[in-house]
Amino acid sequence: MGETLGFIGLGNMGYPIASNLIRAGYKLRVYNRTLSKAEPLLSQGAVLASRPAEVAEPGGIVVTMLADDQAVEAIALRNRELDERLGPGGIHLSLSTISPATARKLAEQHAQHGVGYVAAPVFGRPEAAAAGKLWVCLSGHRESKKRIQPIVDSFGQGSFDFGEDPGAANVVKLCGNFLIATAIEAMAEAWTLAEKNGLDRVRVAEMLTKTLFACPIYQSYGERIAQQQYDPVGFRLALGLKDVDLALQTATSSQMPMPLASLLHDRWLSGVAKGRSNLDWTAAALGVAEDAGLPIAKKSPTA
Amino acid sequence: MGETLGFIGLGNMGYPIASNLIRAGYKLRVYNRTLSKAEPLLSQGAVLASRPAEVAEPGGIVVTMLADDQAVEAIALRNRELDERLGPGGIHLSLSTISPATARKLAEQHAQHGVGYVAAPVFGRPEAAAAGKLWVCLSGHRESKKRIQPIVDSFGQGSFDFGEDPGAANVVKLCGNFLIATAIEAMAEAWTLAEKNGLDRVRVAEMLTKTLFACPIYQSYGERIAQQQYDPVGFRLALGLKDVDLALQTATSSQMPMPLASLLHDRWLSGVAKGRSNLDWTAAALGVAEDAGLPIAKKSPTA
Amino acid sequence: MGETLGFIGLGNMGYPIASNLIRAGYKLRVYNRTLSKAEPLLSQGAVLASRPAEVAEPGGIVVTMLADDQAVEAIALRNRELDERLGPGGIHLSLSTISPATARKLAEQHAQHGVGYVAAPVFGRPEAAAAGKLWVCLSGHRESKKRIQPIVDSFGQGSFDFGEDPGAANVVKLCGNFLIATAIEAMAEAWTLAEKNGLDRVRVAEMLTKTLFACPIYQSYGERIAQQQYDPVGFRLALGLKDVDLALQTATSSQMPMPLASLLHDRWLSGVAKGRSNLDWTAAALGVAEDAGLPIAKKSPTA
Amino acid sequence: MGETLGFIGLGNMGYPIASNLIRAGYKLRVYNRTLSKAEPLLSQGAVLASRPAEVAEPGGIVVTMLADDQAVEAIALRNRELDERLGPGGIHLSLSTISPATARKLAEQHAQHGVGYVAAPVFGRPEAAAAGKLWVCLSGHRESKKRIQPIVDSFGQGSFDFGEDPGAANVVKLCGNFLIATAIEAMAEAWTLAEKNGLDRVRVAEMLTKTLFACPIYQSYGERIAQQQYDPVGFRLALGLKDVDLALQTATSSQMPMPLASLLHDRWLSGVAKGRSNLDWTAAALGVAEDAGLPIAKKSPTA
Repeated sequence: MGETLGFIGLGNMGYPIASNLIRAGYKLRVYNRTLSKAEPLLSQGAVLASRPAEVAEPGGIVVTMLADDQAVEAIALRNRELDERLGPGGIHLSLSTISPATARKLAEQHAQHGVGYVAAPVFGRPEAAAAGKLWVCLSGHRESKKRIQPIVDSFGQGSFDFGEDPGAANVVKLCGNFLIATAIEAMAEAWTLAEKNGLDRVRVAEMLTKTLFACPIYQSYGERIAQQQYDPVGFRLALGLKDVDLALQTATSSQMPMPLASLLHDRWLSGVAKGRSNLDWTAAALGVAEDAGLPIAKKSPTA
Repeated sequence: MGETLGFIGLGNMGYPIASNLIRAGYKLRVYNRTLSKAEPLLSQGAVLASRPAEVAEPGGIVVTMLADDQAVEAIALRNRELDERLGPGGIHLSLSTISPATARKLAEQHAQHGVGYVAAPVFGRPEAAAAGKLWVCLSGHRESKKRIQPIVDSFGQGSFDFGEDPGAANVVKLCGNFLIATAIEAMAEAWTLAEKNGLDRVRVAEMLTKTLFACPIYQSYGERIAQQQYDPVGFRLALGLKDVDLALQTATSSQMPMPLASLLHDRWLSGVAKGRSNLDWTAAALGVAEDAGLPIAKKSPTA
Repeated sequence: MGETLGFIGLGNMGYPIASNLIRAGYKLRVYNRTLSKAEPLLSQGAVLASRPAEVAEPGGIVVTMLADDQAVEAIALRNRELDERLGPGGIHLSLSTISPATARKLAEQHAQHGVGYVAAPVFGRPEAAAAGKLWVCLSGHRESKKRIQPIVDSFGQGSFDFGEDPGAANVVKLCGNFLIATAIEAMAEAWTLAEKNGLDRVRVAEMLTKTLFACPIYQSYGERIAQQQYDPVGFRLALGLKDVDLALQTATSSQMPMPLASLLHDRWLSGVAKGRSNLDWTAAALGVAEDAGLPIAKKSPTA
Repeated sequence: MGETLGFIGLGNMGYPIASNLIRAGYKLRVYNRTLSKAEPLLSQGAVLASRPAEVAEPGGIVVTMLADDQAVEAIALRNRELDERLGPGGIHLSLSTISPATARKLAEQHAQHGVGYVAAPVFGRPEAAAAGKLWVCLSGHRESKKRIQPIVDSFGQGSFDFGEDPGAANVVKLCGNFLIATAIEAMAEAWTLAEKNGLDRVRVAEMLTKTLFACPIYQSYGERIAQQQYDPVGFRLALGLKDVDLALQTATSSQMPMPLASLLHDRWLSGVAKGRSNLDWTAAALGVAEDAGLPIAKKSPTA
C-alpha cells in the first residue's frame, strides 16, 4: 500500500473513515473546514492541507465526505482547481449523500479533465464507521471503480455495484435512508399507540424487533425510540430532513409522488421548526408524542 | 394430551393451526361456515359440529380463528350458547385479529359465566402456520393462560405474555400489522423511485434487505414487491384494510393521530375500490405504480 | 298554525330553532336531557316532557336536534316508544348531523310503524339559527316532506331537496362540513406561511376573502383564524372531529379514499388529544402554529 | 398617456394584459419566445423586439409575465443587459408567479443599477385578464409603485399593497393559489363522495356554491369539477404543480410544514406522471376518481 490519498471532510463520519484508511496503510493529506478536528489524525501521520484542492496530486485519488450538495459543489464543481490538480487518471471518490442530479453534474465536469467520478455513499452510523462495518453503494466510472475497491474495503463490510450511472448509488442511498426514516416514524406511532393503551412501550418494541423485525435498523432505532432516548447524536435531525428532501426532489424530477416521503418531510421539518436540528434524527418521534397530547420528557439535550 | 378442543374457523390460517393441534395429539371438534373446508381434518379424526357452540363442552377449551370482529361477536358475544356450554372453568382462546375493545367486551361477558378469555393473536402467513412457526401474543385471564400454553406451543415458535388486560395482545398485533403495512408501502415507493431512475428494482431490494433490513418481513415482502408478484395470496388485501382500520379506530379511541396509518388506510381502501380485495395485500403497491404513471403488469389474478 | 310539535334537543342549535318555531306560532312540547335549558322556552308557552317519547302525539311531528348518532339512536331507534306514540301518519323530522347509514336505519324502522322520516340537517352557526338564516338539506319520505316544509321555512332561509333516500341530505351535510373543515386547515396554513414570511396575517386574510374567496365561510372563519381568536364557541372542536369522522366512515363504506379528510381527522384528533375539545373548531389552527414552532398565544379559554 | 412600455411574455395571461395596455393608450415594445403570438399586437401598433432586453429604454418600464423562476432569471438576472438598458430610474414590473426568494434576488440586483423592482403577481384566469378584471398584489420599491399604479389599473379591478419587501406580493400570490388548489381537491373529494352515495354531483355542487361557498373560485371551479369538464385550459396542470411546489419550498425555507400542500403536491405530480400536464389544473380531480375505482370519462383532450 502506502499510496497517498486526499481526504476532505472530517466530520462525524469522515473522521472514523479517515482513521481506518490510515490504519489500512494509506497516507493521507487531509482538509477540514474546522482545522482542530484534523489534529488527532496528524499525530497518526496525516498531512494537513490549507485549502481543499491542495489535498490532490496528479493522477491521484481524492475522497470527499461532506454534509450536503452545496458543500460538494463548492469544493468540486464551482471551483475547477481540484480537477486541474487531479488531471487525467485522477479519481474523485465521493462518499457524501447527495442528489443523483449533482452526482451526474460532477461526473460530467470531472470527465472534461480526465478525472473519474465514483459515487460511494455509505450506510451506517459513526460507530459502524469506526468499526469498519459500513455498507457501501458504488456506481460510476468503470475503471476507477476497480482502483478504489481496496480503499472502500478498508472501511466497509461489503459493497454493492450499481453500474456506471454516477447517480445510481445515490438513488440507492436515498431509498435506504427513506426506508429508515419511515421505520422511525412507524415505530414512534406504534410504540405510542401501545403506551396510550396501557402497554409498556419497551416490551412491545422488544417483542416485535426480536421476531418479525429482527434486523439492525429496527433493533437499534426501535429501542432508542421506545426509551425516548435521543442522544448520543449519530445523525443530526437537520441532516435527516435534508435526505428526505433529496428523495422527494429526486422523485419529483422523475415524476412520481411519494406520499410517505411527504409525510416524513412534514414531520422532520416540524422538528427543525421546534429547534431540534441538532438532536439525533430519531427525535422526530417527539412530534408523534406531542400530537398525541403526551408530555415530552426533558431528557434530551436542547438544540 | 389427548384433550378434546373445540375449534371454530378453518380458513387460510385456522386450517393449518388445527392440523398442527391434531398432529400434537389433541382431539378436535370443529366448526366452519363452509363445511367442505373441514373435510381433510375429519379424515385425521376431527369431529364435525353442525353449529359453532356445539364444539364446546363443560369446562373445556374453545379455540377461535375468525376473519373479523363481527364474526367473533356473532359466535361468542351476541349468542350466549357458547358461554353456557363452556360454563365455569371453560376457556375461550381467541386467535383472531380483532379490536382490543371487542376483546375486552368478550372477556367481560365470558367472566359472567365463569369462562376465562385468553387473547392469542398470531403473526405469520399460512406457510408459517403450517410449519408451526407462528409468533403468538398473549394476554388475558391469568389461570387460563397457564392451561392453554401447551396448545399455543404446538403451533407457535414462541409466545410473549402482555399481562391480564384482554385487549393488550391485540394492541401488539395491531402495532405489528401496522409496521408490516408501512414496510410494504415504503418498499413500494422506494423500489419505484429506483425503477424511475433507471435502476433494477430487484437488485436494490436485494441489497437493502441483505444488509440494513435483513429480517423476514423485509426479505419476503421486499422481493414480492420488487418482482411485482402478488400471488399466491397469503393475506387478502381487504383484511389488510381491516387491520389498518382497527389500528386507526384504536388510535382514535385513545386520542392519538397516526398519520402513517391514515395514509395506509387511503392506499388499501383505494385497492379495494379498484377491485383488488382478493389479491395479496402487497398488491397495494400497484397504487404506487399507478400514481407514478407506470403501466400495470397483468400478472396477477383479478379479484 | 297553532299545530303542536314535539322537540327533542335544546343545545346550541336546538334552542334557537325551537324559539323560532314558537315565534312562528307553533306550540311545542319539549324535552332536553339538561332540563334547565328548557326553562326560557316554558315562559314562551312550551310544555316540558319528562322523557323523550312523551313529546310525541299520534300522527304528530317530532323534531330532533341531537349531538350524534348515538343520541339519536338512543331516542328513536333502540327505543320503540317514540314510534308507537307517533304511529301511522306521524313524522320524525331529524335535523341532527348523523351518518347516512343511521338515517337509513331510522327511516326503515319508522316505516314499520307508519311513521315518515325526513332528514333535514342544517348549515349555519347558532347566530344564524337565531336569525332564522339556516340553510336546510332535505331528503326522505315524499309526503312527509310536503307537510314539514312550513316548519323548515320558519328557521331556514332556504331549503334544497335531495330526493327520497333518507341518507342523501346527510351526505350533502357531510360534504359541506368537510369543505368547511378543509377551508379552516387551508387558511391556517396559508396565514401561517404569510406570518412566517413577515407579512401581516390579518391583511392577507382580508385581501383574499374580499376577492377570490368573498363568501361567508372564508370571511367569518378567515378573520377568526387570522386573529387567532377561538371564542365564542359556535361549534365545538370535538363535534368537528365527529363530522370529519362521519365523512371518512361514509367514504370507507362507499369505497373511496379521501386523503384530505384523513389529514383533517389527524389534525382535529390531535386537538382533542391536547385538551381542546371544548374550544371552537377553528382552534384546530393551533396545531398548524405548533408544528411551525410558533408560540401559542393564551387568549383562548381552556377546555 | 402615450408612454412606451417594454413587455416580455405573451402567453395565456400576458397576451390579454398587453392588449389591455394598448387599449389604455400605452405604446408597447414586445418580446415573446414564440414570435407568432405577438402578431395580433403588431397590427394594434406594438413594435417587435428581437431579443428580451431590446424592449427596454433608459429610465423606462419593462413588464414581464413569464412561466416560472427560470424564465425570469434567464431574462433579468443571469443577463445584465436588461438592467444596463433600463438604468437609473428604470422599473421592472414583474407579474409572474415566482418564489419570494427569486423576487428578492431580482430586487437586489436591479438596485445595483438604479432600477426599481415591483412585484405585481395577479389573480384571475385568461378571461379575467381580457376583461381587465384581475386582482393584483403589489410589493417592492416605494417610488416605483406609485409610477406603475396606472399601468396596473388598466388591467386590474383592484390592487393591494403589501409593503416594500419585494417578496411579499409573491407570498400572498402563493397563499392564494394554494387556497385555490386546496378547494379543487376538496371539491373533487366531496363531489365524488356524493356520487358514490347515489347523489347527483352537479346538484350538490350547485347547492353548496350558492350558499356557504357563494364566491367566484367555488362557483367556477365547482361546476367544472362537478361536470368533469377539464377544458378549455385556463391554467395548465403543470403550472399548478409549479405553484404548489413554490409554496412548499417557501414553507420549507421558513421552517413550517404545510401538510395540505404536501398532499396537493402528490396529487398534481401524479397528474403530471399520468400525462396530464397540458390539461387544465382542475384535471387533478381525475386522480380522486381513479383512486375511488371510478371509470374516467374520456371527454378531455389528452396532453
